[in-house]
Amino acid sequence: MAGYPYRHLLGIEGLSPPEITALLDRAEEAVAVSRQVEKKKAVLRGRTQINLFFEASTRTQSSFEIAGKRLGADVMNMSVSSSSVKKGETLIDTAATLNAMNPDILVVRHHAAGAVHLLAQKVGCSVINAGDGAHEHPTQALLDALTMRRHKGDIGRLTVAICGDILHSRVARSNILLLNALGARVRVVAPSTLLPTGISQMGVEVHTSMADGLKDADIVMMLRLQRERMAGSFIPSVREYFRYWGLDREKLSHARPDALVMHPGPMNRGVEIDPEIADGPQSLIREQVEMGVAVRMAVLEALAAHLPNN
Amino acid sequence: MAGYPYRHLLGIEGLSPPEITALLDRAEEAVAVSRQVEKKKAVLRGRTQINLFFEASTRTQSSFEIAGKRLGADVMNMSVSSSSVKKGETLIDTAATLNAMNPDILVVRHHAAGAVHLLAQKVGCSVINAGDGAHEHPTQALLDALTMRRHKGDIGRLTVAICGDILHSRVARSNILLLNALGARVRVVAPSTLLPTGISQMGVEVHTSMADGLKDADIVMMLRLQRERMAGSFIPSVREYFRYWGLDREKLSHARPDALVMHPGPMNRGVEIDPEIADGPQSLIREQVEMGVAVRMAVLEALAAHLPNN
Amino acid sequence: MAGYPYRHLLGIEGLSPPEITALLDRAEEAVAVSRQVEKKKAVLRGRTQINLFFEASTRTQSSFEIAGKRLGADVMNMSVSSSSVKKGETLIDTAATLNAMNPDILVVRHHAAGAVHLLAQKVGCSVINAGDGAHEHPTQALLDALTMRRHKGDIGRLTVAICGDILHSRVARSNILLLNALGARVRVVAPSTLLPTGISQMGVEVHTSMADGLKDADIVMMLRLQRERMAGSFIPSVREYFRYWGLDREKLSHARPDALVMHPGPMNRGVEIDPEIADGPQSLIREQVEMGVAVRMAVLEALAAHLPNN
Repeated sequence: MAGYPYRHLLGIEGLSPPEITALLDRAEEAVAVSRQVEKKKAVLRGRTQINLFFEASTRTQSSFEIAGKRLGADVMNMSVSSSSVKKGETLIDTAATLNAMNPDILVVRHHAAGAVHLLAQKVGCSVINAGDGAHEHPTQALLDALTMRRHKGDIGRLTVAICGDILHSRVARSNILLLNALGARVRVVAPSTLLPTGISQMGVEVHTSMADGLKDADIVMMLRLQRERMAGSFIPSVREYFRYWGLDREKLSHARPDALVMHPGPMNRGVEIDPEIADGPQSLIREQVEMGVAVRMAVLEALAAHLPNN
Repeated sequence: MAGYPYRHLLGIEGLSPPEITALLDRAEEAVAVSRQVEKKKAVLRGRTQINLFFEASTRTQSSFEIAGKRLGADVMNMSVSSSSVKKGETLIDTAATLNAMNPDILVVRHHAAGAVHLLAQKVGCSVINAGDGAHEHPTQALLDALTMRRHKGDIGRLTVAICGDILHSRVARSNILLLNALGARVRVVAPSTLLPTGISQMGVEVHTSMADGLKDADIVMMLRLQRERMAGSFIPSVREYFRYWGLDREKLSHARPDALVMHPGPMNRGVEIDPEIADGPQSLIREQVEMGVAVRMAVLEALAAHLPNN
Repeated sequence: MAGYPYRHLLGIEGLSPPEITALLDRAEEAVAVSRQVEKKKAVLRGRTQINLFFEASTRTQSSFEIAGKRLGADVMNMSVSSSSVKKGETLIDTAATLNAMNPDILVVRHHAAGAVHLLAQKVGCSVINAGDGAHEHPTQALLDALTMRRHKGDIGRLTVAICGDILHSRVARSNILLLNALGARVRVVAPSTLLPTGISQMGVEVHTSMADGLKDADIVMMLRLQRERMAGSFIPSVREYFRYWGLDREKLSHARPDALVMHPGPMNRGVEIDPEIADGPQSLIREQVEMGVAVRMAVLEALAAHLPNN
C-alpha cells in the first residue's frame, strides 16, 4: 500500500515520480486481474463508490464502474444534467448530500475547471477527478503512461508529440505534467489558434507543423477535435483540418519507424486521424482502453488504503 | 423481526406508535452499519429490489439504491418518464410486468396520489411508497423522526413547526401523521394560499405568520417551495416569499434558543431558507440525508421478514 | 454444459432442434432459481456482462440485467442514444472500446438488421442478440417456446397463429424459425400491407382474415402494432385496426376452446388486443415475462461454458 500517500487524486500536478511509478506498478497487477476468468478482488468489498458525472462520458464512467465492481465495491452512478445545476452552490449541495450517505469514494467529472478541488474540500470521503473542464484528467494521463511503458520501457527516454486541439484538452494538460515529471521530451503540435496562452511555460516544445513536430517522435498522441467547445470562435472545416493536422501515413512517416500512435477516444475518424492509422499496426488505441480499467482499479485500491475509517 | 407486521409500507397512516418506534430502533442500528468500513449486511442477499420511479428523484432513489446494496440485494433502477405513461392502465401493466420478474421489493414513486396503493394490490411482492403525488412519503417522515429523536429524545414532548408550501407537500402530510401518532404538538405555518383545505381537521395548529408559528418551537421544518406544481394559480415572487416565509436569523429567533432546523431537500437557497441558517449550527439538514439511508435500510429489512417466500 | 456448442447467440437461424431443446431444458431449471428466496447462482461470479442498447427497451434490458445479476455477474448498462451514433463505423468503435474492457458477455440491441452479427465478428467476448432491426430476437422466441411447452407439451404438435404487424417484427421472424425447427404448424395472419415480401417462402401458411387464420389454433400470438416504424407509408387507424385485427372474444372463438393467448409486450390495449382478453384466463402474457428472465439466465449460463478463458 506504500507509494501513494494522498486521500484524493485530483490531478497529476504535485505528484512525484515515485508516486506516479507506484500507481503504474499497481496498475500492472490490475491488468492481470481483468484478464482472469474471475475478474474479482475483495479490496473494496462493502465500500460505496459513487460516480458523479456533471458531464456525460460513456467511456470514462464505464471504465470507473467496471473498475469499482471488479474490486467488489457497491457502485452507484449519478448523472446530473447540467441544466439542473445552475449555481456553484448547487454543486456543493449535491456533493454534501452524497457525502452524507457515507460513500467511501466519489468519482467526479465536471465541466468547470477547479470544481472537483472545491468539492474535495467539502466532503469526508476520497475524491477522484475524472475530468474537470480544461484543467486535469489524471487517470487518462496515467493510463497513457502505462500503455507507453508497456511498449517502450523507460518513459524518461521518450519523445512524445501531443497533437491537435491542445486548447480545450485536459488530457493534454495532465499528460504534459506527467511526462515532464518522468523526464520525457514533450512536444505540442497544433495550429496556433488551438494552443493555450502560456503553453511555452509548461516545459514543452511548441510546433505548428506536423512534419516538424513529429520528427523522430517515439509516441504520436492525437487529440479529439472538440468542436462542441468552440462556440463562436474559430471552427476549422473538417476537410481542411484533416489535410493539415489529421494523422495519416504521410505525416506519420516523419516520426520514428517504430513510433506508436495513441488517442484518448472517442475518435473523429477522418478528422484528426485517418482510419487506416487508427486501426493499423502502430496503433495502441484499443490497449489504452484496457489500461484505463487497470489504472482506475489501481487508483481506487491506492485510495482505499487511506480511507477515513481504515 | 417483531414490530412491523405488514407486507408493504405505503404510508404513515395506520401505523401504531409501537410500529413506528420499532422501525426507528432498527434504523438506529443501520446508522452504525453505514459508518463501518465494510458497510454490508447479508439480509437481502439474493433478493431483487426494483426502484420504479415515474418521477425523477436523484436523492430518494440514490438513498434507496445505497440502502438496498448495503443489505446485499440486487438492485435495479427503472426510471419511467412520465411522457411514456399516459394511462393508469400503463402503470398497472408496467407493475405487472416487473412483478412477473419475481422481485422481492418494489420501491415506487409516482406523481399521482394513490397510484402506489393501487399498484400494491396488483403485485405479489412488497411495495414501498417513495412518494405519491401530494399524498404520502413515509420514509421521509421516518427519517425526520429519527433525526429529531437522536437530538431531542422523546418526540412526544416536542413542538414542531412545519413551514411553507404545505399545499403541495407529501412530506408535510406524512410528518403530520407521524408526529401526531407519537404525541408531538404540530403546527403548520404558511400563507393561506399554500394550505390545503381541511388542514385544521388534521390535528394541527394553523398559523399564518412565522413569528407566531415558530414561537417556542423545538423543531423548525422548512419545506421546499414547489413552484413547478403551481401552474396557473398563485405563484409567489421569490423575493416576497423569502421576506415573509423564508427562514432567516430573525424569524428563527422566535423559536426556542436550542431549536433545530430541518429541510427535506433539495433546498431553494434564498427562497424558503437563508443559506446562513441552512449551513449554520442549528441545521440538521445533512444529518437528515444520512438518516435517510438508515431508515430505508430499516424498512427494507423489516419488509424482508414478511416476504412471500420467507 | 452440453447441448449448446456456440460462443454467441445471434439468432434462431441455424440452431438445431436439440440445441433449442437444450436451452429450454436449462431455462426450466432457471425458473426454479428465480422462485427461490435466495435467487442466486455463482455461475457468472467475477464475470462482466455489458448490456449495450442502441435502442431503448425497458423490458428486455431489465430482463437481461436481472438474469445476469441472479447468476452473480457484474452487470453494466450502456444506453447509446441513436442520435450519437451516425455511422456503422461508430458501432464498431463502441464495440471495440467495450471489448477492450475485457467483458465476458455483450448483450446488444440495435435498430439495424445485421448490426449484431457484424459486431460479433469484431469482439473477443460472447455476444447475445437482444433484437436487431426487423431481423431476429432469439431470446424472445425461446421464451415464447418455453411458455408454450410448459402449457401444451410437445411444440411439434401445435398450430400457432402469429397475428398482426408481421412486417416490422423480429419477434415474428425468430418465432417462425424456432417453431418450424421444432415441427409446429405456423400461420401468419395479417393484412397484406403488414406482410413482408417472401413470407410464403418461410414455411408458413399465410392468412389475411382472423377467422380463417385462428381456426383450430392452439396458440394465438398477437404482435405489437409498431406505428412508430411506419413513417410515410400505410398507417392504419387504431379503431379500424382493432375492428379487423384486434383480438377480442369473438375472434378468439375461432381458435380451439383451450387456445392460449400470447403477446411479447408492451401491449397496445384496445389496438391489437382487447384488455378483456389480455387479462383473461387464456392469457399467458405475464408468464412470458417470467420465462423471459429464465431463458436469459439459461442463455447466459450456456455461453459461460464457452467463454474464451474457461
